[in-house]
Amino acid sequence: MKMTIKEIYKNPKDAAANSIRLAGWVRTVRDLKTFGFIELNDGSFFKSLQIVFEEGKISNFKEITRLTVGASIIAEGTLVETPGAKQPFEIHASKVEVEGECPVQYPLQKKRHSFEFLRTISHLRPRTNTFSAVFRVRSMMAYAIHKFFQEKGFVYVHTPIITGSDCEGAGEMFRVTTLDMDKPPRDEQREVDFSKDFFGKQSNLTVSGQLAAEAYCMAFGRVYTFGPTFRAENSNTARHAAEFWMIEPEMAFSDLNDDMELAEEMLKFIIKYILDNAAEEMEFFNSFIDKGLLDRLNGIVKSDFAHVSYTEAVELLEKEKNIFQYPVEWGKDLQTEHERYLTEKVFGKPVFVTGYPKDIKAFYMRMNDDNRTVAAMDLLVPGVGEIIGGSQREERADFLEKRMEDMGICKDDYWWYLDLRKYGGTKHSGFGLGFERAIMYMTGMQNIRDVIPFPRTAGMAEF
Amino acid sequence: MKMTIKEIYKNPKDAAANSIRLAGWVRTVRDLKTFGFIELNDGSFFKSLQIVFEEGKISNFKEITRLTVGASIIAEGTLVETPGAKQPFEIHASKVEVEGECPVQYPLQKKRHSFEFLRTISHLRPRTNTFSAVFRVRSMMAYAIHKFFQEKGFVYVHTPIITGSDCEGAGEMFRVTTLDMDKPPRDEQREVDFSKDFFGKQSNLTVSGQLAAEAYCMAFGRVYTFGPTFRAENSNTARHAAEFWMIEPEMAFSDLNDDMELAEEMLKFIIKYILDNAAEEMEFFNSFIDKGLLDRLNGIVKSDFAHVSYTEAVELLEKEKNIFQYPVEWGKDLQTEHERYLTEKVFGKPVFVTGYPKDIKAFYMRMNDDNRTVAAMDLLVPGVGEIIGGSQREERADFLEKRMEDMGICKDDYWWYLDLRKYGGTKHSGFGLGFERAIMYMTGMQNIRDVIPFPRTAGMAEF
Repeated sequence: MKMTIKEIYKNPKDAAANSIRLAGWVRTVRDLKTFGFIELNDGSFFKSLQIVFEEGKISNFKEITRLTVGASIIAEGTLVETPGAKQPFEIHASKVEVEGECPVQYPLQKKRHSFEFLRTISHLRPRTNTFSAVFRVRSMMAYAIHKFFQEKGFVYVHTPIITGSDCEGAGEMFRVTTLDMDKPPRDEQREVDFSKDFFGKQSNLTVSGQLAAEAYCMAFGRVYTFGPTFRAENSNTARHAAEFWMIEPEMAFSDLNDDMELAEEMLKFIIKYILDNAAEEMEFFNSFIDKGLLDRLNGIVKSDFAHVSYTEAVELLEKEKNIFQYPVEWGKDLQTEHERYLTEKVFGKPVFVTGYPKDIKAFYMRMNDDNRTVAAMDLLVPGVGEIIGGSQREERADFLEKRMEDMGICKDDYWWYLDLRKYGGTKHSGFGLGFERAIMYMTGMQNIRDVIPFPRTAGMAEF
Repeated sequence: MKMTIKEIYKNPKDAAANSIRLAGWVRTVRDLKTFGFIELNDGSFFKSLQIVFEEGKISNFKEITRLTVGASIIAEGTLVETPGAKQPFEIHASKVEVEGECPVQYPLQKKRHSFEFLRTISHLRPRTNTFSAVFRVRSMMAYAIHKFFQEKGFVYVHTPIITGSDCEGAGEMFRVTTLDMDKPPRDEQREVDFSKDFFGKQSNLTVSGQLAAEAYCMAFGRVYTFGPTFRAENSNTARHAAEFWMIEPEMAFSDLNDDMELAEEMLKFIIKYILDNAAEEMEFFNSFIDKGLLDRLNGIVKSDFAHVSYTEAVELLEKEKNIFQYPVEWGKDLQTEHERYLTEKVFGKPVFVTGYPKDIKAFYMRMNDDNRTVAAMDLLVPGVGEIIGGSQREERADFLEKRMEDMGICKDDYWWYLDLRKYGGTKHSGFGLGFERAIMYMTGMQNIRDVIPFPRTAGMAEF
């Protein structure tokens, strides 16, 4: 019976009743003259399974003793319980076939490799314990997010990746073009003639799906996006990538409080899903990557998130201003050190900061009655700082147009966005969750390059 | 109690016990002097709900009689059964608040609009019956696909969108750049110096995630991608878009038969999920878009898909060559008319065509022993033709390198792909499903522009 290692761990009783066929990759081999052990991993599960092979029991004993790390094999045998041993059971092989050999030049020999080195072999690193865990958790988190929103009746919208407009002017954008870079077509003023480009105008990679999601929100009531977004920022930090995935829900007939409720519920759902479904991976992260991880995550699931206004937060921080590198001042954005102080020291749990000064926030956020703050929220979490940013959107056409004028945003590009306020507009709100930040938070991994299969950063588009 | 229309339809008994609060958009209003009817849709469900309002029962009766199509309202009232009426129940309002008005210039007045016209207001078209159904089904299909693969233990891999290499040379690619198009940096030969570009080399938008997925397949055993892909083809057809989403599973230790089994199981799962979860939408498509739709889909769920070799298929087609516009000849690719003839007339059900001539297929497909065909398969379905294309991959390093040389593919760019054959390579296979083609197939919609929220095609990147 063909089985995966996951199936065996989940149902050892079933497995023990049958002759089992397994296929996977050799993690280690030990040869003790007349018998030997293979640690086999098939990628279905974080844990490996031990295969015992013995001279006389398999026909190609000598060949199998010469197996090397990384080789792929297909093994048949029976599952045997091993009470008292490190692993609860092992396979006693009746047959081992070599599917693909692996020469000793294989870069993933049994030793500890630095994450930096492993990035240079991104095509092989998912075969290591750490990255096997990271990318299995990444996959499960993506599914948990879909599950959360679909079960709540949110409609998944694929907002466009290529865009003719620039949402909120957030950061530098990548141009998308089919023009000849060497000799682009030019108009009468000798300027590059983008009317000849593929889309008949300048186009870019999206920085956010929010505005398009708002259009769908005004039809479906509750929607979310989950897709790649791009920033052409030349910043070489552990937290920035040029290509990353973002989740952006949007709800009609909802205000900032509804928005924060949704964010809290979603985050707890994701964490709980991963704790329930990736217990082995999470134990590994807790042991080898980030000692306090499980305590922190369990704490979050159980806590009621705190709330504080930006103005109060600045007052709290000003009391401690000597310990910070960056100044704290009303009107300035909070730095990561401030955010972490608030969530870790002041509140000791996740905290929503609300009511940011309008001048440091985007044009689409709803103006508060004080006319100097907007109905924005950032969720700060221990160990990371900001993980979610959201707002109630400005639904009043006249307020929105004035903000766009004040901020120099070309209203002609956004005629359709303004239409949403004219035709049955509603109070509405939403937020953005950077998927990679969430994975880092969940796994304790410290570099965004280590939670993206093939990361794209300045100077790096290999593989 | 706040409820959605979907919740009310699913649990009318619960709803009837309480005073209900609903929020949504007015589809129609009828004013009969002392009372009136509002057809309300909140986007949670395909169907609308009728709200009856009466003079004396609500405080702003006059205002509500003046409501226009498209306005957003919040209504409170009780659910009342209406035996014998068109709808099973209605709301008797105790309160109706206007949230957002909608002027009579609103382009979606109660009449039939052409799909062409509705494309010019892509931000509003999800408010119509047809597009409400299309995009709710699109969302559910995306979820069904994730559910299918996750429950089978496949790991979801986010393969890169921006790429430095060109998988299989499939079609024209979009360049991604941050260089100044007007005055790009130039090297000593006066050529554009792409080493100064953001990624330090020429980069493009991906046409397929397969090769990267194969790398992960060799670690996790079973993986899938689900992400956007791009073609810069200037083809103005109803079946081509510049930006579309693709699903690409990949399985280690699997051959072409396993691949076809997976494709058949997946397609049936998706169809069944939608028939079960979007019954109202599917009835609408069957009545108004494509009369034979439900029969066709139900037939597919029940049928065992047929199998035929490319060579046999060509023989079958040659018998009828007079009815075709395009010639049928061994060595040439099948045209849609041929594909549809095979699946509709010859087999009367979905059919896998296998063993295509190597010269019309990609370099990574496994060479058959005849040395002139490859282990490729296309799945053809009635009404559409090809919907899935897959293959067993060439796992033999020497065969693969030879094919790359013969086809003029730069091996240096693919060093990491060749590594997968050197280090514990295995037999493996996979396929690609164009998500939009699948939606068209599921809904009967005839133009790809009508199943993408904001479609991107040559000359079109509006919104």
